[in-house]
Amino acid sequence: MNSVEGGVTAAQGFQAAGVAAGIKYKDRSDMALVYTEKPAVFGGTFTTNVVKAAPVCWDKKLLEKGEPVHAVVLNSGIANACTGSEGEALNYAMAEEVAGQLCIEPEQVLTASTGVIGMQLKKEALVRGAALLKAALSDSAEAGAEAARAIMTTDTVSKEAAVCFEAEGRTVTVGGMSKGSGMIHPNMATMLSVTTTDAAIDREDLQELVSGAVRDSFNMISVDRDTSTNDTYLVLANGASGVTIKKGTQAYEDFKEALFYVAKELAKKMAGDGEGCTRRLEVRVVHCASEKKARTLAKSVITSNLVKAAMYGSDANWGRILCALGYAGEEFDPEKICLTIEAGGDSLLLFRDGAAAAYSEDRATEILKNREVIIICDMKEGEASATAWGCDLTHDYVSINADYRS
Amino acid sequence: MNSVEGGVTAAQGFQAAGVAAGIKYKDRSDMALVYTEKPAVFGGTFTTNVVKAAPVCWDKKLLEKGEPVHAVVLNSGIANACTGSEGEALNYAMAEEVAGQLCIEPEQVLTASTGVIGMQLKKEALVRGAALLKAALSDSAEAGAEAARAIMTTDTVSKEAAVCFEAEGRTVTVGGMSKGSGMIHPNMATMLSVTTTDAAIDREDLQELVSGAVRDSFNMISVDRDTSTNDTYLVLANGASGVTIKKGTQAYEDFKEALFYVAKELAKKMAGDGEGCTRRLEVRVVHCASEKKARTLAKSVITSNLVKAAMYGSDANWGRILCALGYAGEEFDPEKICLTIEAGGDSLLLFRDGAAAAYSEDRATEILKNREVIIICDMKEGEASATAWGCDLTHDYVSINADYRS
Repeated sequence: MNSVEGGVTAAQGFQAAGVAAGIKYKDRSDMALVYTEKPAVFGGTFTTNVVKAAPVCWDKKLLEKGEPVHAVVLNSGIANACTGSEGEALNYAMAEEVAGQLCIEPEQVLTASTGVIGMQLKKEALVRGAALLKAALSDSAEAGAEAARAIMTTDTVSKEAAVCFEAEGRTVTVGGMSKGSGMIHPNMATMLSVTTTDAAIDREDLQELVSGAVRDSFNMISVDRDTSTNDTYLVLANGASGVTIKKGTQAYEDFKEALFYVAKELAKKMAGDGEGCTRRLEVRVVHCASEKKARTLAKSVITSNLVKAAMYGSDANWGRILCALGYAGEEFDPEKICLTIEAGGDSLLLFRDGAAAAYSEDRATEILKNREVIIICDMKEGEASATAWGCDLTHDYVSINADYRS
Repeated sequence: MNSVEGGVTAAQGFQAAGVAAGIKYKDRSDMALVYTEKPAVFGGTFTTNVVKAAPVCWDKKLLEKGEPVHAVVLNSGIANACTGSEGEALNYAMAEEVAGQLCIEPEQVLTASTGVIGMQLKKEALVRGAALLKAALSDSAEAGAEAARAIMTTDTVSKEAAVCFEAEGRTVTVGGMSKGSGMIHPNMATMLSVTTTDAAIDREDLQELVSGAVRDSFNMISVDRDTSTNDTYLVLANGASGVTIKKGTQAYEDFKEALFYVAKELAKKMAGDGEGCTRRLEVRVVHCASEKKARTLAKSVITSNLVKAAMYGSDANWGRILCALGYAGEEFDPEKICLTIEAGGDSLLLFRDGAAAAYSEDRATEILKNREVIIICDMKEGEASATAWGCDLTHDYVSINADYRS
């Protein structure tokens, strides 16, 4: 498997565009399109929030129907969540306008929205946006990058990842984009993320892989413990590579690895761009009794406001890490645990045998000043492990979210 | 029931003191004692965190033994959590030193600690503190206030509450103190809180009431979702009023009301003094299908970082409230919900029938500028309700916690 440049246009047969449609602000790129002329089977997972945005309900309906699709249209600025029947109609209009431009059916267009909850989309912007998107469609890497930029909200960088592998003497590519910086605590789904592949694959097999992919990637990141109303992860497979992925083959294993890799890379990029953050945190729970338990413990540490604030201050306050493990709802023996921090090629043991290790606070602070910090919780009780990603809690997070709508 | 001045010395027969023992800092009040010459039966609840501080383990052991006690010694500055066997020995020393001063047994002294996790207490400070406490003991209101001040950490105000009622022609008093400002997300217990009463009551009956009291008070507040390793709620009853409280009597109902009232007042004071906060939030979930569900929903909103940051910015971002209700893990119909904010004698409907109500953002912002804000979530599905208390998420919260140990 090789990493390649690009995102949603990396795979053969996919075009994309990102334009400024005037969804909420003037002159800001805010509408994106991913298009495949060949029909694509697709899989998807969505927010578990009881309050679901109109585009989430639309996509779920299409997923149930199981017919192939040709496009995904996405917008930033307005989430189209908590918008009632008017919001549903406007979501349909978004699909319909794009379908009209592409000469396909609205039911062949998936939708996704992100932004302020409760505001209504404006029909004029959708009409304008659909026409601009059609005109801008291209299979270039730049077009994929434009699409990734158009779905940003408080994100500071756009997020793309792509890999390829060989099968049957041909190249199969998997590439994706995602957005997400705040209201990030995906549960069985993620913020907006679209992945494309030119592999051909059975719909049920794809959906099974999609569900597996989110488990170790998007579902293991958290910026602020707030599970959004709009989380959407879509994977489109149009078969343009000429390679068909079948269970029980090496190509299936390679495809799975590629899909999981792209999902994890996108997830890590989201964690590292958490609202206002100054560093990315990685929590590894190792030698744990079960994977489920390791997951729960890792997520408890990554979501602790106190751990996150301590990391912002480069403070090796390991008591807060132990505390967060302790309230996760899992049993364990605190006496057994070893806590280690790792960053910038250096590592330091902080806690073992139920009490502080003899370490230098100055050296700990130096390690914690790195942009990417790893916290290792060795439970010393088994063989299972899990990793979660997140970020520190900063003054800027508060500023961004005290003033998001204005 | 009448509200009275004071805290742990309001009830007859209780003395208290607060002194500067030099636990962690010089010249800062950091050690407190509550003493009753008459033996007191006691009830208590403690943190559910798997990682438990040494004093929590000690108190739980004494609670199981069930013998009456004479004193509670508390310190701030160092939590005596994650301190191994040395921490256990120092906790015993704390009880022993106080017992020596008071000519009682160490097993008649409850302990409680709050502060930095992982640091060891110093024996000299405990010896010095115990002697100073003995010398300062008094049944005055001022002595109770000194004790309440000595257990503060990042608290900006001390917390006391007391009430009395009449029974059998005598006055029964219930008074308490508590501390807590960060790492506040009690679960079946709370931060440090000691309540005293001069009622006489059976040990089992008292414990039952204690468990009930935390449910609607300390367990319904959250500052930062971090359940501490040290949460301790103790209630001591010395019988000095001459009134015995028996189940099935009016006095029992009055005592229950008094105990619950003091617990709730202390809890609200903690919520309103959350680290760095500028306002207290109250979330009322009403007309809900069950009380348990109402509790879960109210806690989900009160703990949402995004709701808390929006409140800090006086931003009526009701989408975040709905979103937090939606990811609480409970089913409901978003179309039915009405959201209202209430403060400073004014109230405003924000959301109904699945979409935004026609309200003025300016008026909403004015209402949200109040020091105490109430968010009412009317589920329109039943008769149950629950209330949770918390505070906003501010720049100061981040500052305090990025730099707590230095």
